[in-house]
Amino acid sequence: MNQFSIAIHGGAGTILPSLMTTEKEALYKKGLKEALQKGAKILAQGGSSMDAVEAAVMSLEDFPLFNAGKGAVFTNKGTHEMDAAIMDGNTLEAGAVSGISNIKNPVSLARTIMLKSGHVFLAGKDAEAFGKLNGLNLEDDKYFYTEERYKQWQELVNTENYQLDHKAGSIHTEKKFGTVGAVALDMKGNLAAATSTGGMTNKRFGRIGDTPVIGSGTYANNQTCAISCTGHGEFFLRAVVAYDISCLIEYKGLSLEEACRIVVMEKLVKLGGEGGLIAIDKTGNISLPFNSEGMYRASMKSGGEEYIAIYK
Amino acid sequence: MNQFSIAIHGGAGTILPSLMTTEKEALYKKGLKEALQKGAKILAQGGSSMDAVEAAVMSLEDFPLFNAGKGAVFTNKGTHEMDAAIMDGNTLEAGAVSGISNIKNPVSLARTIMLKSGHVFLAGKDAEAFGKLNGLNLEDDKYFYTEERYKQWQELVNTENYQLDHKAGSIHTEKKFGTVGAVALDMKGNLAAATSTGGMTNKRFGRIGDTPVIGSGTYANNQTCAISCTGHGEFFLRAVVAYDISCLIEYKGLSLEEACRIVVMEKLVKLGGEGGLIAIDKTGNISLPFNSEGMYRASMKSGGEEYIAIYK
Repeated sequence: MNQFSIAIHGGAGTILPSLMTTEKEALYKKGLKEALQKGAKILAQGGSSMDAVEAAVMSLEDFPLFNAGKGAVFTNKGTHEMDAAIMDGNTLEAGAVSGISNIKNPVSLARTIMLKSGHVFLAGKDAEAFGKLNGLNLEDDKYFYTEERYKQWQELVNTENYQLDHKAGSIHTEKKFGTVGAVALDMKGNLAAATSTGGMTNKRFGRIGDTPVIGSGTYANNQTCAISCTGHGEFFLRAVVAYDISCLIEYKGLSLEEACRIVVMEKLVKLGGEGGLIAIDKTGNISLPFNSEGMYRASMKSGGEEYIAIYK
Repeated sequence: MNQFSIAIHGGAGTILPSLMTTEKEALYKKGLKEALQKGAKILAQGGSSMDAVEAAVMSLEDFPLFNAGKGAVFTNKGTHEMDAAIMDGNTLEAGAVSGISNIKNPVSLARTIMLKSGHVFLAGKDAEAFGKLNGLNLEDDKYFYTEERYKQWQELVNTENYQLDHKAGSIHTEKKFGTVGAVALDMKGNLAAATSTGGMTNKRFGRIGDTPVIGSGTYANNQTCAISCTGHGEFFLRAVVAYDISCLIEYKGLSLEEACRIVVMEKLVKLGGEGGLIAIDKTGNISLPFNSEGMYRASMKSGGEEYIAIYK
């Protein structure tokens, strides 16, 4: 088909313009632009959608303002526990990982799990051990430290509260569902999706959100679409969001845009689930719906302009 | 509606009649019968489907021949790491847990997570801590020891192999996907599903199968059906099996039986995924499909006979 599409996100939520400085907005857009360009370059050169979504998510993981990889929030123990997933729409193969520390790029560990473990979903210290055995890049705790995340954690550390990255109401923070993700269609017609997150600030009890759950936070299928979600994960799990969109396309014949609208603007809203997602269908259509104030997002089609946006 | 339905399973796989003794077959059937009756009694007295599926799964967890709770297989570290999930079709609330030890009834921890944690999915030692804080029944490692599982593990412990409970080919064992589950429709029309497993013998790297994943191994929705799966979990994850059946009913208007047939006998077979599932729809129809040699299963409708079977 010789055409490609790519979309990325850096999380959704109550991103208040009043709290955003010009400098910070420029930084966020820089992070999105870099990730978009890394993925788009691979696609433009005839590379695979799997390579493109991995590269784009790695770029977002390496960028400290997004809650994934470097920039991941602190758990209630002061650690960083990250989750990630990737899915290949051509083979329906998938890899996912939850509750890992000290792996520089969780999305790459998810892909290695898909390729080399014989499993789909690994978790915790044992999953880290698998990453080490397979030569994943490691980083010490210091690498994952960022001052902003530390301050956010300090506000909560002696409470039983957890927060979805930032929380509205606090004078200098916002409620944001910090997750990053990418979806792509390559020139061979193969779809792929990847998602990565640091989870909730001060989270406890080994909580797993929708990010690493195939069908909820991440899904790709060449017959329908590729999806990466960001939002209040519990609701996305209960609504099986990503696969729901795929089924509405496959079984009801809906367009990508209509399927996304029903799931994000109707079903999730009814359930009380705030957030959004990025989606590309098998013909390259892009949909970037969210029911929150904003979503860090960017997209591009072959021969088209870069689209980069934060607010509605 | 004043009618109820319940179905349970104790795992699917290559259950070879040639390796089954009359005594052992009677024991398996006794375990199934007890669990079925515990659930059915609750439903007959007007109790909720959530109470019925929890009670039935607890009974299966407590029965040492099934791979869940007491009777769970050994990991490569000689530990027992169990997974479970439960979902309420009325509210679409769900609870799930992965990689826990020393909790007598993982299904009850899943339900407590649903009711009290503010989350859907917790994992590992931190999830156990949540269980302890909330008064779940604890058991030491000795409780989870069974001689048969220990022997199965010893065959594999110094290899890199893992096994789905038992494996065909070994002279005295079989390939079996050891998981237990229950689905029920109560007299108020509410559906519920629950699943619990000890995972794979000699499993490594914190592997998570489909059991605790809402939408894959476990799903319930009053608008459609309740599903609990058993099989080679990686394929069930990639195929989002439980929610797929729900979507085929909701979006394509298929009957429960036809939806189950397509997913288990066509889509899973094409992907290479061996196993089965138990399903009840909103009008009380029961379907118990499997593409393996057998599935430990039982079911009953109000006013009807008990059905208990192992082979095709």
